[in-house]
Amino acid sequence: MSATTFPARTTTPEIELGTTLQPKFGSDGLIPCITQDVNTGQVLMFAFMNAESLAKTLSTKKATYWSRSRNKLWVKGEESGNVQVVKELFTDCDQDVLLIKVEQTGAANAACHNGYKSCFYRRLESLDDASFQLHYTAERLFDPAPVYKKK
Amino acid sequence: MSATTFPARTTTPEIELGTTLQPKFGSDGLIPCITQDVNTGQVLMFAFMNAESLAKTLSTKKATYWSRSRNKLWVKGEESGNVQVVKELFTDCDQDVLLIKVEQTGAANAACHNGYKSCFYRRLESLDDASFQLHYTAERLFDPAPVYKKK
Repeated sequence: MSATTFPARTTTPEIELGTTLQPKFGSDGLIPCITQDVNTGQVLMFAFMNAESLAKTLSTKKATYWSRSRNKLWVKGEESGNVQVVKELFTDCDQDVLLIKVEQTGAANAACHNGYKSCFYRRLESLDDASFQLHYTAERLFDPAPVYKKK
Repeated sequence: MSATTFPARTTTPEIELGTTLQPKFGSDGLIPCITQDVNTGQVLMFAFMNAESLAKTLSTKKATYWSRSRNKLWVKGEESGNVQVVKELFTDCDQDVLLIKVEQTGAANAACHNGYKSCFYRRLESLDDASFQLHYTAERLFDPAPVYKKK
């Protein structure tokens, strides 16, 4: 797929209050994307998209990110089978963030490569706790070792 | 408040599966933060924190971000009154993103400077629509003009 262009950024009022999607890709070509479970509202993960991955997400309805660590397009679930079917896509006031609501599919129904439904599986135990201890709030749904091939 | 230090980043297993909060601040000193309504799960906004704003968030329980546009600490609601009381704080698998669950307070109960409850008040009308039209999904809760002082 060739690079895809989205409408150019215009004026602040049009960006913030208009009805044309004109996403801001940063100097690295990326826009942050929050991924939420469409049914429960649980935040599953946070990743980045570039124009190509956003276009592919829109055309395939499968959440497709840009992997900064692997420096390549990343169709979520292509290895693990935990594909995310995109049901809704929002942008924020200044159109520099995306929010997608997805149906998390796959045998394990897990978004996180560590085997959890959500990447946000640890909560700060006490906001007053100066030792900053994290507390697990979720059960592991699969053992990631056999699922992902060694890189 | 002086700069606050958080535990240094150690090993990948400890970062991903351990119980010590060791957030990754980027080369710009910032970590992304997703803010969710603790009662409804609605994603309200997305912003950044630096170490000082994270420490202040933890000590005051008021969501405190780093404003990149104003280049200063930003106690959410300090001008508008729409303070966010932090109830829970999560981090993701690789501890380079924060998720806070807040009680959105204030007369208008709105997180967005444009007068909406959430910054994500526009949804792509159809994922198939090549014209990328956005559709309003929320009502404006306040008129922002008189609330914010001119900068």
